[in-house]
Amino acid sequence: KERKKSAEIVSGQYGLNLLLVGVALMLAVGYHGPAVKEKHLLSFITALMLGQILWMLWYIGRRVARKTAPLEKDARSGTSWIRGGITIMALLSLIMDAFRIGRYIGYRKCMSAALVVYPVVHALHTVSQVHFLWFHIKDMIKTYETFERFGVIHAVFTNLLLWCNGAMSESEHFLKDHKKRLSELGYVNLSIADHGPHCNCSTRACSVFSSSLYYLYPFNIEYHILVSAMLFVMWKNIGRTAHHHHHHQQERPHVPRIRGLSAGPALGLVALASTIAVLAVYTVHVGETVETHDSAISMFYHHGIVLLGCMGLAGALGLLVYRTDSRPPDRSKSASRQLDQEMLVGASVGTWLMCWCSVVAAGVTYSSPSYRWVALAYSLLLVLEKSVQNLFIIESLYRTDEAAETQRPTHAPRATVSTEIFSVSASLSSPFRGDREVHRQVHRQVCVCPRKRPATPVPTAPSRAGTLGWRRRVVRNVTVFLILGNMSLWLLPAFGCRPQYDNGLEHETFGFTIWTMVLNFAMPLNLFYRMHAVSSLVEVFQHL
Amino acid sequence: KERKKSAEIVSGQYGLNLLLVGVALMLAVGYHGPAVKEKHLLSFITALMLGQILWMLWYIGRRVARKTAPLEKDARSGTSWIRGGITIMALLSLIMDAFRIGRYIGYRKCMSAALVVYPVVHALHTVSQVHFLWFHIKDMIKTYETFERFGVIHAVFTNLLLWCNGAMSESEHFLKDHKKRLSELGYVNLSIADHGPHCNCSTRACSVFSSSLYYLYPFNIEYHILVSAMLFVMWKNIGRTAHHHHHHQQERPHVPRIRGLSAGPALGLVALASTIAVLAVYTVHVGETVETHDSAISMFYHHGIVLLGCMGLAGALGLLVYRTDSRPPDRSKSASRQLDQEMLVGASVGTWLMCWCSVVAAGVTYSSPSYRWVALAYSLLLVLEKSVQNLFIIESLYRTDEAAETQRPTHAPRATVSTEIFSVSASLSSPFRGDREVHRQVHRQVCVCPRKRPATPVPTAPSRAGTLGWRRRVVRNVTVFLILGNMSLWLLPAFGCRPQYDNGLEHETFGFTIWTMVLNFAMPLNLFYRMHAVSSLVEVFQHL
Repeated sequence: KERKKSAEIVSGQYGLNLLLVGVALMLAVGYHGPAVKEKHLLSFITALMLGQILWMLWYIGRRVARKTAPLEKDARSGTSWIRGGITIMALLSLIMDAFRIGRYIGYRKCMSAALVVYPVVHALHTVSQVHFLWFHIKDMIKTYETFERFGVIHAVFTNLLLWCNGAMSESEHFLKDHKKRLSELGYVNLSIADHGPHCNCSTRACSVFSSSLYYLYPFNIEYHILVSAMLFVMWKNIGRTAHHHHHHQQERPHVPRIRGLSAGPALGLVALASTIAVLAVYTVHVGETVETHDSAISMFYHHGIVLLGCMGLAGALGLLVYRTDSRPPDRSKSASRQLDQEMLVGASVGTWLMCWCSVVAAGVTYSSPSYRWVALAYSLLLVLEKSVQNLFIIESLYRTDEAAETQRPTHAPRATVSTEIFSVSASLSSPFRGDREVHRQVHRQVCVCPRKRPATPVPTAPSRAGTLGWRRRVVRNVTVFLILGNMSLWLLPAFGCRPQYDNGLEHETFGFTIWTMVLNFAMPLNLFYRMHAVSSLVEVFQHL
Repeated sequence: KERKKSAEIVSGQYGLNLLLVGVALMLAVGYHGPAVKEKHLLSFITALMLGQILWMLWYIGRRVARKTAPLEKDARSGTSWIRGGITIMALLSLIMDAFRIGRYIGYRKCMSAALVVYPVVHALHTVSQVHFLWFHIKDMIKTYETFERFGVIHAVFTNLLLWCNGAMSESEHFLKDHKKRLSELGYVNLSIADHGPHCNCSTRACSVFSSSLYYLYPFNIEYHILVSAMLFVMWKNIGRTAHHHHHHQQERPHVPRIRGLSAGPALGLVALASTIAVLAVYTVHVGETVETHDSAISMFYHHGIVLLGCMGLAGALGLLVYRTDSRPPDRSKSASRQLDQEMLVGASVGTWLMCWCSVVAAGVTYSSPSYRWVALAYSLLLVLEKSVQNLFIIESLYRTDEAAETQRPTHAPRATVSTEIFSVSASLSSPFRGDREVHRQVHRQVCVCPRKRPATPVPTAPSRAGTLGWRRRVVRNVTVFLILGNMSLWLLPAFGCRPQYDNGLEHETFGFTIWTMVLNFAMPLNLFYRMHAVSSLVEVFQHL
């Protein structure tokens, strides 16, 4: 137990330092100085990936060799639909690697060999990692704990570094495109430093490869952060004992999940469709002429205001419904739910900073473009919407457990075996829940040996089941609407619809360097926030 | 209880957004654009301080009005020596305000009125806040909880914003000095934009005021972050119930704390003295000529390598001693100790990033100054020393409780009423400890009503008391040495000894902008880390 704690700290510090070495190299590459080139960074990442592959091979080999030994599994981590999603994203990453190799073949005369070794190793890494995720992510490691702890944390931080690198490449690529567009529109006269290969492509497909790569970035980025979160849960599980809830696996009735849904999905689909329309129009119009550029930005803000207004109202409605419910929510202390909550609020910080910068810029600007006040309203609404949504999600996480327990114990299995990738709470809450029950009994001075626990801890009045119906229906609709809304708000920035670059307000107040820095910090956090919110809301929905 | 959780989240989000508005303004001011001037930022901060003063007046007034009502106090927060330290720093802040006012009087023709309102309000704020800290920081608020929660979090984030502003001003000031020195030495030809007042001073004392301000910054900065940590503990205490340990307040024998100390304090004082000498020599020599500049930097690195090597060895020695101790350490889950640990590791991230950047820079540099390899060794040692020290402090926090309980129960009061400012663990651990005991009993299926708890939970073999003597003596010496070492390493950067700016290695690899950005992020975190480490180690020492 003692060695476990120390190993946890030491391995955590090891992983952090790996990441920081990578970040230091990324910063040096970002400067485009003479000393550190992209090939050095890629060699470092390749070495880390090779290390992870070796560890995974060792791990899988050991598991195969002693197949007879029974192994505890954490049934609640990595559901099949999440693993399916990861597999699709991994396939897209493989295509990306193929494109990279293709581009290298075109430019092979003037590109470093590291630039072809990287995609090859990355493809190997992706294949073996997906295999690992399918067959071993649920393992609760009990042997060679210290070594395995380093192996898993190495994998976590390798993926995080790949995420950072992807996010950086993506934003650098976006910035280059943006500068090119600006100078075409005649706004500014920025010298575009070309850091691409300095020779001509020997095949015809080079430009196709380069431009297709850009559309695959978002999936590659999300793939790595998803995997690193799953591996982090695995790291947390090392040395733990699984709490089997056998009664959960007994019956699994397939209830239609769409019961009681009406306004929520309808509005949500409208939001999603209009978002895709806005995305298409924006992408085409923003680079055409100065007039269409301004009107595209205006359109984005108006669409955003309506969508964010609806989402804020939906969240507030959900909170109001919770207020009319007099049942005491589950307020027990749980370190994991706390962590979930901190990740949600922590990821919001990026967007909030961006929003307040926009508010300051729109408030003080001298050049007054037509979209000045809608930009200000949009930013304020975004702050408000995130605050309300955070509150709604956190309240829901604290409420749904109780509801699931008391309302429909037969449906609990689906609820428990749900998406625990980003929401750490459910996957870790169970041991605490058991303790809590014991606690309760102790505090009430019941003084019974807690060998047999009552199946229904707190009996609720059955007369209330009728009134709970409309509440649940409202909350379900709200949740579905918020899921689709958050997906819309993920789509827009993920596919290049970022008026914060185009509107020129913030550049004027903060200068190009500072504002780009803020965006490079805030944008990846914003994308992560939307994904995290979606997965938390899916979990809430499955509990309802 | 339900409202409490929501109020906690909403007030936390409110506070975060206050800070982010301030940061957005700071970024705009940092750009020195035409739109946002320093007076706008200072007006915003002044408004926040006025809000906090009003809230404190309201709070104090209410307390005075209903003096008869008994009020629960958290005996464990804000010991008198910490409050004394804060008072001294507050006095230095008042002197700083006086200097600011004096400077305004000199430049009053061309300075905005906001620049004199700010120090006046800041002085008022300091006085009332110190009064508040002396008489009310221990309160456990039970009435008007929601409102008070907002008041306290407003105070927390106002102080954090003042800290950010101080750190930014300080690093900007430092950067300006540094650029001036560089161009005097003929290294670079940077144009120094002068953002100072554009008129002549009408009194003689202006330059004295300006240069003295610089030496007072470190105290002002640490004052604000200390206060905000204390207020954060107060915020966490709102709505809680105090756990009185009456037997702790019964007897307080004054044991000589210096018993068993020999090598630790001696070595530590040597380190401190040599550090002050290095600081003085460095400050004088670094700006003289190119030769003294290089030799000053070399001296700094050699001194740092020796000091860090000793500290790393001392930490390793402490860890080894713990390994020889077979008693099981206290491994119970405690959210607060976890938080303490996260703050320690989190604050290290800044330095680690800086170190890895230095390592990359020293590794790849083309210009090879004489101090290239010592700089590399210094950075690697710094990473290692922080890792070892973190591990030592965390292990100690988990061990000393048990030691204090079993070894010398009569000395426990001093241990419990100790410095809980940065180390949140001790001030919050007590409620968990009670639960843990209950847990243990339940898990062991003892099945006794936990009304009477045994005074000594785990009896240790009395024969081991003798061998424990040398262990404690070694750990005490190690702790004292680490305290003095960390103080030395706080002193150097706090008073302007920052070779990371002067050595030129990193500028070459990362460029001026990126490297300044990294330092502006890492330096305040580094200063905070050293203070946090000192206060954690003082706590460890008091438990030994």
